[in-house]
Amino acid sequence: MKLYYSPASPFARKCLVVAHELGLMDRIQVLNEGVHPVNRNQTVVAANPLGQVPTLITDNGQAVHDSRVICDYLNAQGQGSLVPADETRWTVLTEQSMADGLLAAALLCRYEVTARPEALRWTDWTQGQMQKITDTLAYFESVIAHRGESLDLGTIGLASALGYLDFRFADYDWRSANPGLAEWYGRFAQRPSMQATAPV
Amino acid sequence: MKLYYSPASPFARKCLVVAHELGLMDRIQVLNEGVHPVNRNQTVVAANPLGQVPTLITDNGQAVHDSRVICDYLNAQGQGSLVPADETRWTVLTEQSMADGLLAAALLCRYEVTARPEALRWTDWTQGQMQKITDTLAYFESVIAHRGESLDLGTIGLASALGYLDFRFADYDWRSANPGLAEWYGRFAQRPSMQATAPV
Repeated sequence: MKLYYSPASPFARKCLVVAHELGLMDRIQVLNEGVHPVNRNQTVVAANPLGQVPTLITDNGQAVHDSRVICDYLNAQGQGSLVPADETRWTVLTEQSMADGLLAAALLCRYEVTARPEALRWTDWTQGQMQKITDTLAYFESVIAHRGESLDLGTIGLASALGYLDFRFADYDWRSANPGLAEWYGRFAQRPSMQATAPV
Repeated sequence: MKLYYSPASPFARKCLVVAHELGLMDRIQVLNEGVHPVNRNQTVVAANPLGQVPTLITDNGQAVHDSRVICDYLNAQGQGSLVPADETRWTVLTEQSMADGLLAAALLCRYEVTARPEALRWTDWTQGQMQKITDTLAYFESVIAHRGESLDLGTIGLASALGYLDFRFADYDWRSANPGLAEWYGRFAQRPSMQATAPV
């Protein structure tokens, strides 16, 4: 398999954490492809018209994306149990979606203050996106004590999201308002899969 | 079940089309909740901190979202076959993701030209998002002849996306460049599930 990836992409990191946890890394060629919302990467576009990383190319040449579909695919390839089949499935998938939504909001904030010309920035937009982040973190703070040491697409997505906040929003102190989450992440981030995929 | 929904949301429409196709509509109470990226709807936020529709509340009170997780949940409730279990699964899920990505780009364009103050609009941003839409439509044009009359989360997602383009981007002539897709959509849009959920 080939994975188009960017070392700064939290969605790509989620896929790599999954691959590490399932012991699939020796089957994946990781190809560094920077992407941008305005200046589109044509190598990636050829495989995925949305021009986004991560995009996976399977051994038979099929393009699989986005990160959620890739994680589901890798879980199947590795005969993993990162997506439960019982009733907890809907909690795990909803929490993966929430972590993805938090990241989408964070990326929109980042595009607003890095890609967009300064004169065209809209504070209300950034504040609306940051409020999504704050509220989603508060949700996870309220449930994290019940997640224990669970390893699934929800907790991996959450850890990837928190890692991204530390990486790109270093001034945003999410830990003070979410001490349970901070403690949980402190442990989760020690996993070899997380250590091996830290953003640079 | 309760579904927080907006009649203009293509992601909510996708869920309703699925519910219609699976014969689940008499089990779902549809609640109209307008949402906005800046002025957040607190009823929806209480169930989903991202403040987005669609959000489903199951009969045991659990919140399930986003639209992909809801469609998967409804498919399970209705014992449907909208997500194949064989190797075509990855094509269907990737195409659902592409249709969702097209819609995400369309919504970002729309927020740019309706929500954002006129003086703060950035043409490059809108063009980058429109290019994603154009390229994704070209992909679907290249494969649609192979989809036949298949009814799955990929084709339902695609039809919901095309319906949204007609609804909100009426001046964007996607049919001329994509005649196969236009013909396919002409047939698909006649399904009772599509007729019953047309945006208003």
